[in-house]
Amino acid sequence: MYRSRPKGPLHKDILDFLSSIGDDDEVFLYDLLGSQAHVLMLHDIGLLVHDETKAILTTLDQLKHQPELLDKQNAEDIHEAIESTLIKQIGMEIGGKMQIGRSRNDQVILDILMKVRDDANTICDSLVRIMQSLLEKADENVNTVMPLYTHLRQAQIGSYSHFMVSYVDSLFRDMERLYACYGRINRSPLGAGAVGGSRIMLDRVKTSKLLGFGSMIENSIDATSSRDVIIEYASNLALIMLTLSRMAEDFIIWSSDEFAFIEISDEYSSSSSSMPQKKNPDPLELLRGKSGQVLGDLFAMTSIIKSIPSGYSRDLQELKPCIWRIASTTNESLKVLTYVVKTITVNKGRMSEASNNSYALSFDIAELLSLKYGIAFRTAHKIMGLLVQRAAVRNKRPLRMVSKEDVHEVLEKTGCIVNAEEVLNDIKGMTPNLSISSRQSVGSPNPKQVQDRVKLLRARALKYNERISARKNSVHEAFQMLAQLVKKYSGNDVGGIN
Amino acid sequence: MYRSRPKGPLHKDILDFLSSIGDDDEVFLYDLLGSQAHVLMLHDIGLLVHDETKAILTTLDQLKHQPELLDKQNAEDIHEAIESTLIKQIGMEIGGKMQIGRSRNDQVILDILMKVRDDANTICDSLVRIMQSLLEKADENVNTVMPLYTHLRQAQIGSYSHFMVSYVDSLFRDMERLYACYGRINRSPLGAGAVGGSRIMLDRVKTSKLLGFGSMIENSIDATSSRDVIIEYASNLALIMLTLSRMAEDFIIWSSDEFAFIEISDEYSSSSSSMPQKKNPDPLELLRGKSGQVLGDLFAMTSIIKSIPSGYSRDLQELKPCIWRIASTTNESLKVLTYVVKTITVNKGRMSEASNNSYALSFDIAELLSLKYGIAFRTAHKIMGLLVQRAAVRNKRPLRMVSKEDVHEVLEKTGCIVNAEEVLNDIKGMTPNLSISSRQSVGSPNPKQVQDRVKLLRARALKYNERISARKNSVHEAFQMLAQLVKKYSGNDVGGIN
Amino acid sequence: MYRSRPKGPLHKDILDFLSSIGDDDEVFLYDLLGSQAHVLMLHDIGLLVHDETKAILTTLDQLKHQPELLDKQNAEDIHEAIESTLIKQIGMEIGGKMQIGRSRNDQVILDILMKVRDDANTICDSLVRIMQSLLEKADENVNTVMPLYTHLRQAQIGSYSHFMVSYVDSLFRDMERLYACYGRINRSPLGAGAVGGSRIMLDRVKTSKLLGFGSMIENSIDATSSRDVIIEYASNLALIMLTLSRMAEDFIIWSSDEFAFIEISDEYSSSSSSMPQKKNPDPLELLRGKSGQVLGDLFAMTSIIKSIPSGYSRDLQELKPCIWRIASTTNESLKVLTYVVKTITVNKGRMSEASNNSYALSFDIAELLSLKYGIAFRTAHKIMGLLVQRAAVRNKRPLRMVSKEDVHEVLEKTGCIVNAEEVLNDIKGMTPNLSISSRQSVGSPNPKQVQDRVKLLRARALKYNERISARKNSVHEAFQMLAQLVKKYSGNDVGGIN
Amino acid sequence: MYRSRPKGPLHKDILDFLSSIGDDDEVFLYDLLGSQAHVLMLHDIGLLVHDETKAILTTLDQLKHQPELLDKQNAEDIHEAIESTLIKQIGMEIGGKMQIGRSRNDQVILDILMKVRDDANTICDSLVRIMQSLLEKADENVNTVMPLYTHLRQAQIGSYSHFMVSYVDSLFRDMERLYACYGRINRSPLGAGAVGGSRIMLDRVKTSKLLGFGSMIENSIDATSSRDVIIEYASNLALIMLTLSRMAEDFIIWSSDEFAFIEISDEYSSSSSSMPQKKNPDPLELLRGKSGQVLGDLFAMTSIIKSIPSGYSRDLQELKPCIWRIASTTNESLKVLTYVVKTITVNKGRMSEASNNSYALSFDIAELLSLKYGIAFRTAHKIMGLLVQRAAVRNKRPLRMVSKEDVHEVLEKTGCIVNAEEVLNDIKGMTPNLSISSRQSVGSPNPKQVQDRVKLLRARALKYNERISARKNSVHEAFQMLAQLVKKYSGNDVGGIN
Repeated sequence: MYRSRPKGPLHKDILDFLSSIGDDDEVFLYDLLGSQAHVLMLHDIGLLVHDETKAILTTLDQLKHQPELLDKQNAEDIHEAIESTLIKQIGMEIGGKMQIGRSRNDQVILDILMKVRDDANTICDSLVRIMQSLLEKADENVNTVMPLYTHLRQAQIGSYSHFMVSYVDSLFRDMERLYACYGRINRSPLGAGAVGGSRIMLDRVKTSKLLGFGSMIENSIDATSSRDVIIEYASNLALIMLTLSRMAEDFIIWSSDEFAFIEISDEYSSSSSSMPQKKNPDPLELLRGKSGQVLGDLFAMTSIIKSIPSGYSRDLQELKPCIWRIASTTNESLKVLTYVVKTITVNKGRMSEASNNSYALSFDIAELLSLKYGIAFRTAHKIMGLLVQRAAVRNKRPLRMVSKEDVHEVLEKTGCIVNAEEVLNDIKGMTPNLSISSRQSVGSPNPKQVQDRVKLLRARALKYNERISARKNSVHEAFQMLAQLVKKYSGNDVGGIN
Repeated sequence: MYRSRPKGPLHKDILDFLSSIGDDDEVFLYDLLGSQAHVLMLHDIGLLVHDETKAILTTLDQLKHQPELLDKQNAEDIHEAIESTLIKQIGMEIGGKMQIGRSRNDQVILDILMKVRDDANTICDSLVRIMQSLLEKADENVNTVMPLYTHLRQAQIGSYSHFMVSYVDSLFRDMERLYACYGRINRSPLGAGAVGGSRIMLDRVKTSKLLGFGSMIENSIDATSSRDVIIEYASNLALIMLTLSRMAEDFIIWSSDEFAFIEISDEYSSSSSSMPQKKNPDPLELLRGKSGQVLGDLFAMTSIIKSIPSGYSRDLQELKPCIWRIASTTNESLKVLTYVVKTITVNKGRMSEASNNSYALSFDIAELLSLKYGIAFRTAHKIMGLLVQRAAVRNKRPLRMVSKEDVHEVLEKTGCIVNAEEVLNDIKGMTPNLSISSRQSVGSPNPKQVQDRVKLLRARALKYNERISARKNSVHEAFQMLAQLVKKYSGNDVGGIN
Repeated sequence: MYRSRPKGPLHKDILDFLSSIGDDDEVFLYDLLGSQAHVLMLHDIGLLVHDETKAILTTLDQLKHQPELLDKQNAEDIHEAIESTLIKQIGMEIGGKMQIGRSRNDQVILDILMKVRDDANTICDSLVRIMQSLLEKADENVNTVMPLYTHLRQAQIGSYSHFMVSYVDSLFRDMERLYACYGRINRSPLGAGAVGGSRIMLDRVKTSKLLGFGSMIENSIDATSSRDVIIEYASNLALIMLTLSRMAEDFIIWSSDEFAFIEISDEYSSSSSSMPQKKNPDPLELLRGKSGQVLGDLFAMTSIIKSIPSGYSRDLQELKPCIWRIASTTNESLKVLTYVVKTITVNKGRMSEASNNSYALSFDIAELLSLKYGIAFRTAHKIMGLLVQRAAVRNKRPLRMVSKEDVHEVLEKTGCIVNAEEVLNDIKGMTPNLSISSRQSVGSPNPKQVQDRVKLLRARALKYNERISARKNSVHEAFQMLAQLVKKYSGNDVGGIN
Repeated sequence: MYRSRPKGPLHKDILDFLSSIGDDDEVFLYDLLGSQAHVLMLHDIGLLVHDETKAILTTLDQLKHQPELLDKQNAEDIHEAIESTLIKQIGMEIGGKMQIGRSRNDQVILDILMKVRDDANTICDSLVRIMQSLLEKADENVNTVMPLYTHLRQAQIGSYSHFMVSYVDSLFRDMERLYACYGRINRSPLGAGAVGGSRIMLDRVKTSKLLGFGSMIENSIDATSSRDVIIEYASNLALIMLTLSRMAEDFIIWSSDEFAFIEISDEYSSSSSSMPQKKNPDPLELLRGKSGQVLGDLFAMTSIIKSIPSGYSRDLQELKPCIWRIASTTNESLKVLTYVVKTITVNKGRMSEASNNSYALSFDIAELLSLKYGIAFRTAHKIMGLLVQRAAVRNKRPLRMVSKEDVHEVLEKTGCIVNAEEVLNDIKGMTPNLSISSRQSVGSPNPKQVQDRVKLLRARALKYNERISARKNSVHEAFQMLAQLVKKYSGNDVGGIN
């Protein structure tokens, strides 16, 4: 329809190659809302008379409720399809006036931002939900000891609760970022035109408000060319996926036969087509795999952006499927992991036993020896290392079963003049629960500390919950208002986008 | 259906998250063919009697012709869906025997390799086609001079033909790689089982032949865990896309208002919704954008592989959409660019004019001065550089309009005792066509050389064409044979996969 | 030195493979400062007596001023090298006490964050600088018309000034992100220990303040395992590089022989070894290439993070060279582009001529026709498209040279009952400067608008300048204070890190 | 020195930004050899007389033996530095003649290919070495049973030997690819000039032979613009790293406290600065991390290539550090992993015990039941799944301790009319060693099969060893020959590149 300069239609195969109609389903409604706002504004500034406005709005509203009326044939994208359908229905004289002061270049970024805005709020909601589930588990397990790992080797004793809190702390930063990014997402590009604006005195503030935006993207080149906010948003979601992927990795390891710290519930486990005994953590593995897809999409987006000059180029169309995919993957993954977290069986007994037999206690003992006998930490470290060496060769016997002779020998070897008997008692007295309850540094698995932290984080989650609701309401109300205004013209009762 | 160990069904939402049924449409037929080969082999080694074999093969064949009979409900993937449908139709006693000696782990990689094998052949075909189109254009334009660019600055004079040949040479390497990769793709993993093979004396050679494979992937861990061949294949397609993207970039620049060397045909050009004068090279831009998506998918695949140990993990499922997308994008892009190449209008006049006025001739003159007067090349370079400086400040006047005084001055400045008049004549005599026809080094745009090269490359393209046909026939014949064997049991006439 | 459990030293080749000593030069000073703060705190909580404190601080301070004293041999990293050197100099009894309540796991992330904090401030400074240079150019060129491009085709008329402002608007978002990220960077992990904290009652608030941090990263697992802030920071720098790369791409195109809109100054241009006439925009191309390296490093980092569970793993070491490289590349690129921007020659005449002959004026005329004669925009679009078609076939004649007959014909064809003469006058009257001065929409190249915008942006840049200075001062003062405290013990006068 | 057109020198800061001198150290020798070959050829075609040839070759040879003579100042790269040094030493009249018929554009890709060629051979050598170490371990462990995993869950019983073979099979494909790529690497671009060749009748065949190349890259645009072979090479190395990373991941898991299947030797293990008991597999983790860096560099390279048109652009300079880094990382990683493989302690007892108690035996039993009693496999799968369910709730008791009642009940539930006693005996009789020795499918861990396979693979490794030696010799001999020719002129005795 826009083919004023090139002669004849696009070659059929090329149209198939070019068309983004498939990806555009996701923004169909947003495009309609944008057009309604634009048309209302055109009326306000005197470019459309009442009857024209009414005719256009009524037709757009019909489309909104009966998307099947949309004539997609021969259209390269949703914008063209909608305008074509409109003109087919009410004629060129009126229908051909809708697009004045507008271009697909400001329309497409408008649609993307409107969708991204809604998705961002949905994902923030899901973030709150998973944090609340984690905090519930944390609350129940402040005394549930478990070995902590570095290098996939037992490192120190910790608690399940403290671990859940570590996830929440990480997720809060993910939330902070997405929350701040929203300020840049929630700006209207409408009115920037093709790249250089318009001689029409468009009321950009008006359309911006009608569509619920907080402000507008001023410069017309910037508004139509830049995609940094989209990349930022995608990066933020990728960071969420990396946090989730790490959690999934932890859970997969912990639920293996060899660790057996937790059990994934049966209804979230898969089986094998050939091996009868299998109960596999497939949702967690798939989530981990999907995080790779999200990284790939992010890379695709950056490499597309990197290759083009200022001003819209069709390369940008390829961002759309990436950004839709990243958002839906992130949100689904959050939901799936929330289910899993909620239904995990924590094998307290197994974790306690592993902790009890763990050489990880030697760190606590080394610190104790330093403090109690004034031994340099580096020496205490050496003492405990040598004792573990001795214990390990004896069939991995736990530290508490080390002999007095060993202790004596090691103390001598490191030149420490301390009573071996006493040290042996220190070693024997060190239990996992004592280990965590004596931890004093802020942010440690000390049960008292963790309990306080959980309270604080719960309050913080609630606060975010409220803020996000407020944002959603603000968009919702703008859409309600827009629908009211349209109704005044079209005589139809129109709900919000949902 | 495989849920022997976990109690109860998968949670509904998790099933949606996990299911690959959508992506599996692409391998539905391959999975059926694989099952038919497996069943025929089970019969041969005495694990299925004739009636059982018949019952299973007949049912599978029905599914092949009526895919709508497939019961996808509750299935995590196509393998489960097919087995479930089979059992539902002919009962557990017989239907439950199909899967012996097999696992989804060898099945899934079998299906992927069968699809990739066909796609690789298709893409090789498209490569031949685009090379032939380029060679046709090359043949027509051996004397069509044009400026060559480095750093997006006019560098030397060349010809359109020579440029088209450079693409063909590059594409031949793309072809070589994909052609060699095929040898690794065309190997059967069937019979590797879940990860460690089977106590059944499976005839792996038999199934391999029935499915048209050249050999098999021996080790069962390797066969089920490794995806390097898939990554190699994806890399090869990404390299093709990078070649195409470079061509697209060249064509976009050449067809800009400022260069105007070529014109993209109207039926492959897009227009603008707002700017009436626009005729945009959208297919080329989109192709360039899609090459970014292909890179993203390749990165997704590698980052997924990087994160997991040996033995199938569900993360691998995420490779499937990537690999399907990469293949279809590459093939479509090849086709679209073939159209564009064929219909480009070459503005010989404009390119000749640009060449004629180009300072790029100064390189030829510098070489000439060196050869003719024995001036060190570095000095000749300096002479010409200074002359260009002088010409450029005079409103970018072409070199042939340089004055005798300038020449004299510059020769003096560089200490060259050569006759200025003579040099001026050398400068004036240097035309674009003389420039390329005097080029002597092998691989230059010298028309005679290029003509010979085009002939040689045409012959090479034909040779590849034959080889690829042979490969396609070989697969096709195996499928025909398989269909015949199935027919013997089922009594149905079944065609190949196409 | 830490080898208490494994017997014997590391294999020499493995030590070379493992050692990060090379990359650690960048954090040597930060590691020393962190150790000084830790030691001061250990004294405060009674774990070190005055003489011990003095001995350690004095030795560390010597190292700070004489880095050549550091014994790097056999050390896997800078942390081990420093502690080893210390113990070698003052003995195990005292030197061996420094490390109590600390681990390389909290040390390494402390060092990274301290370096990143300084680099972030430096980069923010460079961002202010480039924005100021762009605004200066913008200020000088509000009436400098030029064609704006979409799809690398002339689209609308704009101005050089408006274009510079578009960069500044984009860079301000880059600044906002980095500025906000700083709040997450500026948090101390010190005291988190290996992964689970310590039984020592470490005063984490104290060390945090001594090192100038705004707050601390609480949870010990989170503090030692998470790298999301580092990835966020790297993403932010990658986004800056994408903005710069786009600017470089624009400048490369504009400075080509065919566009000739600007000229890059000779002292920022390269020449060719063989082609005498060449003046290449190498710094801009290299910058564009370096943006690819930054993307590569970002994706290296994410793929490393994606593969590991919670708790420090040695994989994380590989983040360091990436993050150092990204920061230095970004900062250098900002500086280089600032130079280039400042010294660009703007060819006003050439841009004016190109604008004057540009079909891009047809958009303005289409809008004008719509407004003036009430023609539907879609029809006006068609009219102008057809006129451009006619002009283009006549040797690309400018629109103002279209004939009255053509206008008449086209109006008839599109069914418009408007006076052809009048329309022809509209067409002839449309000049580039009229085009931009009639632009009314907010954010357009209208000179009046742009001038106001420049003022506003200048003020904003100044404000950021102040804030960043305040941040730098805050860190500087903390370091000064720390040096004072150290001096009290060691008797040496020690400056800040710079 | 090349600055004929731009006035004055490059700005100092820009020179620092642009210069690749640091990265060029790696190709210094190759650039000299290339220049020597070029000069010898220039003499042969009559462009240099004997004395000129002698003067240039002698000076280049001095540089080769005294690299400190190189004057790097003010040079943008190694090519300029060498020519400048030459001219400084022997004057412009003669020295200025070296560069005729050559450009940095064909020189830089020549140097890269020469380095890549040597690196490829070195890496192929290291591949042979690691395969031989793995095969040695395989040879020693054909009866060493161990559980195989899918989804990080015990899947089937296998053997350590079979596992090592799976790595070798995978590495052979890595070898095949790199081996084939060499054919594309080993082609000379010298003589392609800047982009369009030369009017000099360069003897490209001669220089190609002098430098040991197998053939040449014909088309001059292709030779100077294309980097696909470099990307292919980098992809091949990335695939090697992915194989190594998978091996490292397996070893890290197997050497964890919980699995304890293998022990990494102490001299390849790291310790902890704070936790005395630690023995960490740092080299394996770092290798895994480095594979991420290699992926990052690969994607940096592709995103750089993606953004530029045909003809050399300075962006390409950024490929060099990536390609150097990828090669050295891959080669070092191969060496380190070879050490680790050789010195791993295989805990046969622990793996046997784990296998003996593993539910993974249930797959063998299911197959047995199917074969022995004609039960449909799907039913046998169900039977074993239910038995594992029962065993698992009883404190993870091994399958052989299942009760007759359980068996009876499960058989009844699945409608199988088989004697429970007999089935119980089948279950009890299934041992890990019986499991693998009854495996019949080709490629299974059956000890007999594995032994044969090891023999075959050893022979294949030897064959590759010979081929690679031949390649290395061929290059070496060309370099010797070149040195002889140079010596004839210069009177110096010159060795090969080493």
